[in-house]
Amino acid sequence: MKKITIGAVLFSMICAGMNAQSLKSPDGKFEMNFQLKQGVPYYNLKYNGNVVVEDSKLGLRLFKDTAIKFASEVAKPEDAKNDLNNGFTKTDEKRDFKNETWQPVLGEKKNYINNYNELAVTLHQASLDRNMIVKFRLFNDGLGFRYEFPQQKNLNYFVIREEDSEIDFPTDMKAWWIVADYESQEYRYQETKISEIPGRWDQAFDNHSSQALLKNAVQSPLMLKKEGKNPLYVNVGEAAVLDYPASHLEVDAQNFKFKTHLTPDKQGSKGYIQTSAVSPWRTIIVSPKAEEVLDSKMMFNLNEPTKYTDTSYIHPTKYMGVWWEMIIGKSQWAYGQPQSNVHLDKTDFSKLTPNGKHGANNTKVKEYIDFAAENGFDGLLIEGWDIGWEDWYGHYKEYVFDFITPYPDFDIKMLNEYAHSKGIKLIMHHETSGSATNYERWADKAFQLMNKYGYDAVKTGYVGDMIPRGEHHYSQWTINHYYRIAEKANEYKIMVNSHESVRPGGESRTYPNWISAEAARGTEHEAFEGNNPDHQTILPFTRWMGGSMDYTPGIFQTKLDYYFPGDKRFVKTTLAKQLALYVVMYMPLQMAADLPENYKRHMDAFQFIKDVAADWDDTKILSAEPGDYIVTARKAKGTENWFVGGITDENKRDYTVDFSFLDKGKKYEATIYEDGKDADYINNPQSYNIYKKQITSKSKINFKMVRSGGFAISIKVKN
Amino acid sequence: MKKITIGAVLFSMICAGMNAQSLKSPDGKFEMNFQLKQGVPYYNLKYNGNVVVEDSKLGLRLFKDTAIKFASEVAKPEDAKNDLNNGFTKTDEKRDFKNETWQPVLGEKKNYINNYNELAVTLHQASLDRNMIVKFRLFNDGLGFRYEFPQQKNLNYFVIREEDSEIDFPTDMKAWWIVADYESQEYRYQETKISEIPGRWDQAFDNHSSQALLKNAVQSPLMLKKEGKNPLYVNVGEAAVLDYPASHLEVDAQNFKFKTHLTPDKQGSKGYIQTSAVSPWRTIIVSPKAEEVLDSKMMFNLNEPTKYTDTSYIHPTKYMGVWWEMIIGKSQWAYGQPQSNVHLDKTDFSKLTPNGKHGANNTKVKEYIDFAAENGFDGLLIEGWDIGWEDWYGHYKEYVFDFITPYPDFDIKMLNEYAHSKGIKLIMHHETSGSATNYERWADKAFQLMNKYGYDAVKTGYVGDMIPRGEHHYSQWTINHYYRIAEKANEYKIMVNSHESVRPGGESRTYPNWISAEAARGTEHEAFEGNNPDHQTILPFTRWMGGSMDYTPGIFQTKLDYYFPGDKRFVKTTLAKQLALYVVMYMPLQMAADLPENYKRHMDAFQFIKDVAADWDDTKILSAEPGDYIVTARKAKGTENWFVGGITDENKRDYTVDFSFLDKGKKYEATIYEDGKDADYINNPQSYNIYKKQITSKSKINFKMVRSGGFAISIKVKN
Repeated sequence: MKKITIGAVLFSMICAGMNAQSLKSPDGKFEMNFQLKQGVPYYNLKYNGNVVVEDSKLGLRLFKDTAIKFASEVAKPEDAKNDLNNGFTKTDEKRDFKNETWQPVLGEKKNYINNYNELAVTLHQASLDRNMIVKFRLFNDGLGFRYEFPQQKNLNYFVIREEDSEIDFPTDMKAWWIVADYESQEYRYQETKISEIPGRWDQAFDNHSSQALLKNAVQSPLMLKKEGKNPLYVNVGEAAVLDYPASHLEVDAQNFKFKTHLTPDKQGSKGYIQTSAVSPWRTIIVSPKAEEVLDSKMMFNLNEPTKYTDTSYIHPTKYMGVWWEMIIGKSQWAYGQPQSNVHLDKTDFSKLTPNGKHGANNTKVKEYIDFAAENGFDGLLIEGWDIGWEDWYGHYKEYVFDFITPYPDFDIKMLNEYAHSKGIKLIMHHETSGSATNYERWADKAFQLMNKYGYDAVKTGYVGDMIPRGEHHYSQWTINHYYRIAEKANEYKIMVNSHESVRPGGESRTYPNWISAEAARGTEHEAFEGNNPDHQTILPFTRWMGGSMDYTPGIFQTKLDYYFPGDKRFVKTTLAKQLALYVVMYMPLQMAADLPENYKRHMDAFQFIKDVAADWDDTKILSAEPGDYIVTARKAKGTENWFVGGITDENKRDYTVDFSFLDKGKKYEATIYEDGKDADYINNPQSYNIYKKQITSKSKINFKMVRSGGFAISIKVKN
Repeated sequence: MKKITIGAVLFSMICAGMNAQSLKSPDGKFEMNFQLKQGVPYYNLKYNGNVVVEDSKLGLRLFKDTAIKFASEVAKPEDAKNDLNNGFTKTDEKRDFKNETWQPVLGEKKNYINNYNELAVTLHQASLDRNMIVKFRLFNDGLGFRYEFPQQKNLNYFVIREEDSEIDFPTDMKAWWIVADYESQEYRYQETKISEIPGRWDQAFDNHSSQALLKNAVQSPLMLKKEGKNPLYVNVGEAAVLDYPASHLEVDAQNFKFKTHLTPDKQGSKGYIQTSAVSPWRTIIVSPKAEEVLDSKMMFNLNEPTKYTDTSYIHPTKYMGVWWEMIIGKSQWAYGQPQSNVHLDKTDFSKLTPNGKHGANNTKVKEYIDFAAENGFDGLLIEGWDIGWEDWYGHYKEYVFDFITPYPDFDIKMLNEYAHSKGIKLIMHHETSGSATNYERWADKAFQLMNKYGYDAVKTGYVGDMIPRGEHHYSQWTINHYYRIAEKANEYKIMVNSHESVRPGGESRTYPNWISAEAARGTEHEAFEGNNPDHQTILPFTRWMGGSMDYTPGIFQTKLDYYFPGDKRFVKTTLAKQLALYVVMYMPLQMAADLPENYKRHMDAFQFIKDVAADWDDTKILSAEPGDYIVTARKAKGTENWFVGGITDENKRDYTVDFSFLDKGKKYEATIYEDGKDADYINNPQSYNIYKKQITSKSKINFKMVRSGGFAISIKVKN
């Protein structure tokens, strides 16, 4: 809110004197102030003395009754008496701090530093004799806050009508955003000012298989930049979204203000809470440097350490897949003709007329196994192996897959044995078609089958509207489902890579076997309506802030007219940029997504994918600007070898890598993969140069990235 | 519809000539006529040449799209083009008949006769090139019809907006009805004319824990009577409600017409259908004799024979329970003080402060076991044995029970061993609190625990609003849940007795291990707001038409001031009527619901409960009038012994039992239990006479039932 009258300012100052609490970050650069104004909680945030977030309201609105005849309760008018956003007095204040180092099971660095000062304010609501705590943690990279609801006489069960946490910025800023949707994050990023969001919103989406758009709201993590002489980068997100809906950000474009909007269920409610309980953390990462935003581990730090007793089965995995050929339409998931509908408990799939294009057949899978094994991969994903794909999609069908019965041409025993004999593990695929209830019914049997045949990773999928019908992909019930599956997978020592699931908020610290997720617009969209050339320069600032994405890069045959003459679809990058993505994008589960036949034609470039690591001891963001470029260096786990990736948006760009991050005195051999001089992501994407160069920490190399191009460097220590 | 113009009649006759099909019952007394009028399907029904049902419309309305973005589809205006109720031409007609005898696993008779003529009319809708079949089965006791949706090019998946099957009666009739509710059938019956239903509706319900009332609609089975010189009894119901919502009957009180109203889900849809599929059967049982309505097995005949390969574990069971003492408030389900809320995965239940009134404790359970064993019972139900009852109800809590963890004072191993040593099986209790998703997650472990300790029967419960939130107790998803549980229980050879579940429609023929259900206002309501004295004379004509109810009779201590001085609650029958219920009400799972201490004070009367059978070779409805009285004789399974029960409503009544149903030439000893002369259900309910009498098929005995009284006879063959 920008229009403050003098009176209001005065009043605010008076209240601040009585009720204000201040919290500083360990380095003293940030200051957060909390205060009650006439019983309403507010906070603000300053960085180096400058206001980053103006006084912004806190609180939640509740339904009066928890459950009995809840449907009629929803219809009643709101009553502020029920809400946890007014009538508060401060009754307690606790301060704490932490400065710890912890090791992620898989991560971008060996050690993550968790260093914050904490303020917990207990707020008492006399009218209903209820307490709520607002907890703030101020890190050197920004602020996290959440609500805590202790178990107490008058607060045991409640249903959230809305959480109204506000973030009120003093000025307009540049924003990289996607439209809010309760079902999908698979949208193209928009780059506008906050004030321009409503004007752009209606043009900012395409149609998806499951979609519940929220007008004039955007998704988080939201990347913002205050432009001008002293630029400031701000990232707004949420962390530890557990037993709670995921949130969106309603945009007040005139006042540059955002407000939390929780994903509802079909009842219109936004969280069924049993105390003791806590909300997710609302996060505001702030830095004058874009690189520091990418470097922030705040969202992970705000999650609890894992309670898993054994994480030894969790390992970085490089994999190929019988997948891209289905995405582009060269083969099919289904075995039978899709002429009608199939009943899992009635249809004899061995008697279906084969459509002749089934991808997951014994012959082809063995070929993939051979190629993956020859090139040092760990795993091979096979989609479309199980019965039910003939009508899997878009029918609100509950019993769509059983996750245990292979198609007649997929010999699960033989193929696993064949793969194991060559050092490859098959990666299971559990597409649920959004039917979460059905998946939960079959999960034990499905994981037991995986154990039996030696699978240790599963890709789950949630394409289409959710069942229970009326739940959304990001509503509380569904989020609980994802974590139930993660926990069950842990019981069976299985790693999970989920697609069409909720975006992560650092929860992999607690659930480290959920090693990757999609939850954004991945490479597959290049075969649908396309990704923009700047797409990969934004994702690390948004989707990646809370956890790894299974982006599935590595497409060498970017133009699909190679398969289908006249086909206009193409992947909007150069080949060299595809290589760079393996470094720019942190992916412990790392796919080489293209077909073996395409890699065979570019074995020299493919060498980088074979060499690149998937787990890291260190990461240096060398240079970054959202929407423009990112250059990242990473040190491979347990080695002295480094990998560097650089990408650019739709603009060509020069960049000089300064290798001063390398160990002084050590000598390295760098293998460089760069755009060819005549490379062009539209006209000549497969033009690249590869050369070797001996380097030290004093070396510098200049790269000329073409539009939507990039470069990749593999650096091996020599002494 | 009563107002037919001449033109319409003429038009109807012309169409009938072209498109009408007639079907007669095997005995020729019924005639059903089907016809298309301008492409709209109609049927009517005649009995002995008189119109019972006038021309009544058939058909369904559909949503256009099956699933993708279904929520927005719901909001679109209706379009008749999508519907399966118009534009039809008849393209095929198939006739069939059946006259078979089959044996229910448990039943009122050894043999059920299934005898009908069938007409299946294929209707083609040219506009969308779709076919639908309407199938009629005409029995000697009435009509059943359903819709069939063959798998076909243009009809694979659809979502029902509404089924609009009509039943249009020519005249006003007396009706015994309860208010329509998507969640509960536990209402007092109303006796009014059809035309008076709307006027009574608003006074016809009390408040329940989960409730979604449907104004001016009533539940089925609905009992009707055309009064006058030639009375006709009509029962309207539905059978084989599988993968489909249960229906209610919308009342057109001016035209004496009823229309199907399916239970919606929260999306507003009323059935997600994948072809091939069939609707439930709509049933119209008709007879000039009320006794013949009670004798009808049409709803069972319309279900499929079971596919279970083993039904040997299904057996009639007489049981007692640690139950009534909780219902009346003498003890509690919960172990701990209900001061706050409990988390199943966090709370240490062994450290809760005991409330001191926990019913399911070792000492008490052993006492019940002792008494049940001494008196020849098979089983003992114990409710409140598992952790979670401190806050089980009314909070929309999902993880409310785990169904496997006993309270600290319930030694599951010791108690089962103790029970088995005395010939008693404990009966498991699975209260779900409506959280069906949670129950499905735990069902395997719960049934495995039952197998481990030797339980072979479970009472399930669904108190409160359903989870998935927004589903109703009678919506399609929830009905599928009940059958999933029945099938899973069958895997573990476990019998199911469900409470707060959907009413049965003869499905026990297919799922014979689902041996009983509540699904109506049972004895427990006597401890809440009470049942009317005529209640038990109506239930067999309504709730019981499709399957057994767990009514839990046998309350000897009917007045609760015995426990709580000044308590005004009382069971509104005499003690003798309680005995009669064991015969009048068919209950293969038969409870003696009162406390042992009360039976000990009336061991002479208790002898009838000990003696009475729970499974039968034959049943004779000697005399019945809904809302007034029922007298029933049943022949115990595998014996020549008979039992007779007679009950009356709020009016005292004389009735002379004619024993001509007994075998000629055989001699019997009858033990008679009747109201004492001074008995009165309000002032002196425990007054009864017991005497023995030698009888033959020529005997007659007159009984004087006091108001809400009754009599019971145990007849043992002597030669």
